[in-house]
Amino acid sequence: MKITTTTEHFTNPLYLESGRILEPYDLAYETYGELNDNKDNVVVVCHALTGSHHAAGLYEGEVKPGWWDGMIGDNKPIDTTKFFVICVNTIGSCFGSTGPMSAMYPTNEPYRLKFPVITVSDMVKAQRILFDRIGINRAHAIVGGSMGGMQTLCFAIEHPNFAKKHIILASTYATQPWAIAFNKVAKEALIRDPAFKDGFYDPADIKRDGLAGFATGRMCGHISYLSPRSMQKKFGRDYVETDGLYELFGKFQVERYLDYNGLNFVQWFDPLSFLYITKAINIFDATRNYDSLEDSLSRINSEIFLFSFSSDLLFLPKEMKIIEETLKKIGKENLVKYEEIQSDYGHDAFLVELEKFSGSVTKALEE
Amino acid sequence: MKITTTTEHFTNPLYLESGRILEPYDLAYETYGELNDNKDNVVVVCHALTGSHHAAGLYEGEVKPGWWDGMIGDNKPIDTTKFFVICVNTIGSCFGSTGPMSAMYPTNEPYRLKFPVITVSDMVKAQRILFDRIGINRAHAIVGGSMGGMQTLCFAIEHPNFAKKHIILASTYATQPWAIAFNKVAKEALIRDPAFKDGFYDPADIKRDGLAGFATGRMCGHISYLSPRSMQKKFGRDYVETDGLYELFGKFQVERYLDYNGLNFVQWFDPLSFLYITKAINIFDATRNYDSLEDSLSRINSEIFLFSFSSDLLFLPKEMKIIEETLKKIGKENLVKYEEIQSDYGHDAFLVELEKFSGSVTKALEE
Repeated sequence: MKITTTTEHFTNPLYLESGRILEPYDLAYETYGELNDNKDNVVVVCHALTGSHHAAGLYEGEVKPGWWDGMIGDNKPIDTTKFFVICVNTIGSCFGSTGPMSAMYPTNEPYRLKFPVITVSDMVKAQRILFDRIGINRAHAIVGGSMGGMQTLCFAIEHPNFAKKHIILASTYATQPWAIAFNKVAKEALIRDPAFKDGFYDPADIKRDGLAGFATGRMCGHISYLSPRSMQKKFGRDYVETDGLYELFGKFQVERYLDYNGLNFVQWFDPLSFLYITKAINIFDATRNYDSLEDSLSRINSEIFLFSFSSDLLFLPKEMKIIEETLKKIGKENLVKYEEIQSDYGHDAFLVELEKFSGSVTKALEE
Repeated sequence: MKITTTTEHFTNPLYLESGRILEPYDLAYETYGELNDNKDNVVVVCHALTGSHHAAGLYEGEVKPGWWDGMIGDNKPIDTTKFFVICVNTIGSCFGSTGPMSAMYPTNEPYRLKFPVITVSDMVKAQRILFDRIGINRAHAIVGGSMGGMQTLCFAIEHPNFAKKHIILASTYATQPWAIAFNKVAKEALIRDPAFKDGFYDPADIKRDGLAGFATGRMCGHISYLSPRSMQKKFGRDYVETDGLYELFGKFQVERYLDYNGLNFVQWFDPLSFLYITKAINIFDATRNYDSLEDSLSRINSEIFLFSFSSDLLFLPKEMKIIEETLKKIGKENLVKYEEIQSDYGHDAFLVELEKFSGSVTKALEE
């Protein structure tokens, strides 16, 4: 599989939904496989909150491959012997595309809290501009889970002639208060940490000393990505250690898992990017700027494949079902397919239980 | 309804499950109604994590009545014209019974982190000692939700001849990792706050200045007490305020709810009591000290009424069902009744949707 990693620089302003502009800006992206002569084999993969454009393959020296490596590759479910896959780091993120810690032109200082509020629509708009630049005017399909699913739905509504197929996993038409509440706790834990310095932290300090509030916030996110049942299966009531006398003083496995993932997160994700992207998730609402969900979805004229996961507590199957039902209600039953995948893995299922839905994704792409 | 509020002082040591002792100690309790001559109309009500012995009635100057006022009173579901109700503040709590901020004899200084780890068994044992002191050797029933349900189950197993009926709501036989994870986030948010001062805070400072980490931790708890559906019904995607231009900059209703409840909590609950009681909840396991749940439940020889709530995500209906199934398996099907209450209110249902189950509780008490 041929992999390219590129960063494009744009000097024209990006007009944001908030009314503000981003100028100039960079977009980092990765491609897998090769664009065919007809340029009709493009599959856009959209990443989630903490994902990046590195969706597949293993960089030299890397221990873990890209975040959807099981899905993307030669003879894999999204088959790079057939498709030219492209994944763009969203604006606001911290892996090469412009985000809050990028230099605010004309200064050399980072934006920090002067970075504008961005929305999922803005992320999608920036991707369209990048695709134009590299000569891609049409996509065979767009695929994404969680916030990637929000981007995919947004492509279908706001750029209805761009892609033929839209595959949305573990996502929603509008973020509900339960998800907003988890983000709220994460935000509070982060911004109240004195080491956050009201956004004026030195990233090197954080990498060296940690950022306990950010780690705690991440723990809260991990709860929402799992489910009571997946935690039960994964950790039970097992202890990491006890003092030998009684269980009373030990640390539970689930506590160690949260400690490890919380502390580790601080090493590889930027706190301000986290705040800006969770904000984008909170305010995601496919009905904004439209009269209703019916009105908004009536713009769609391409195929929509919806995959929900039975134990997903962050974006409930019911929320995906509403998209299906609304499309049917407005006479687009021929465009929509909905499947609820039975899984105990909660929201994370779209990242870990690939075998449960990858066949359906391949079928959706290839039929 | 006659109400009495009393604090009893004990000078004999309380032998704790950890092997440590508490000596001396106080227990605060409240009673409603009157003990009959046969002393056979006692109903013990056990409170949850942040509850207190003030279960019903309105103190002078108080805005809100006791935490289960809708359930306890003259002609109410737990009818004080018939029953003598007693509710004891658990040890480790902060409303009059001995807890981490009580003076550690012989000093006048609070225990703080020198307070011993306490368990649900210890809470129950202390109550038995109090009942002995005040001449109550038998109870008609014990009732409790959440951690109160753990105490109730513990009464049934460890003090099998004390009460005739045990009514357990929204609880479990052993705390599962999902619940432990929520407590973990709350704990981390609290103990990482510099104002916590590693447990050496001045309560007056906290009341005056707040304790942001504790508030954040409480927010996390509130998520676990609600459910995706109850939040959806309660808050939707409504905004408290917007800047008029776009929704993009507003605060969601659900965020305000969490802010309010988080900040408010710090005013009335002690941080160290919170840590000790959540620890007691985490380590609650009715099978500890027994070979299995079957072994543990085989000690029961009184009626067990189990009420779970369909949307409870903290203690799932399935966990309560396991108690029922195990009792049936060991031949005690005549002692157990299980009912799953359909509710959207999540774990909080046992405190707010009284009309859904109070009739069944009355029936259980009176039949």
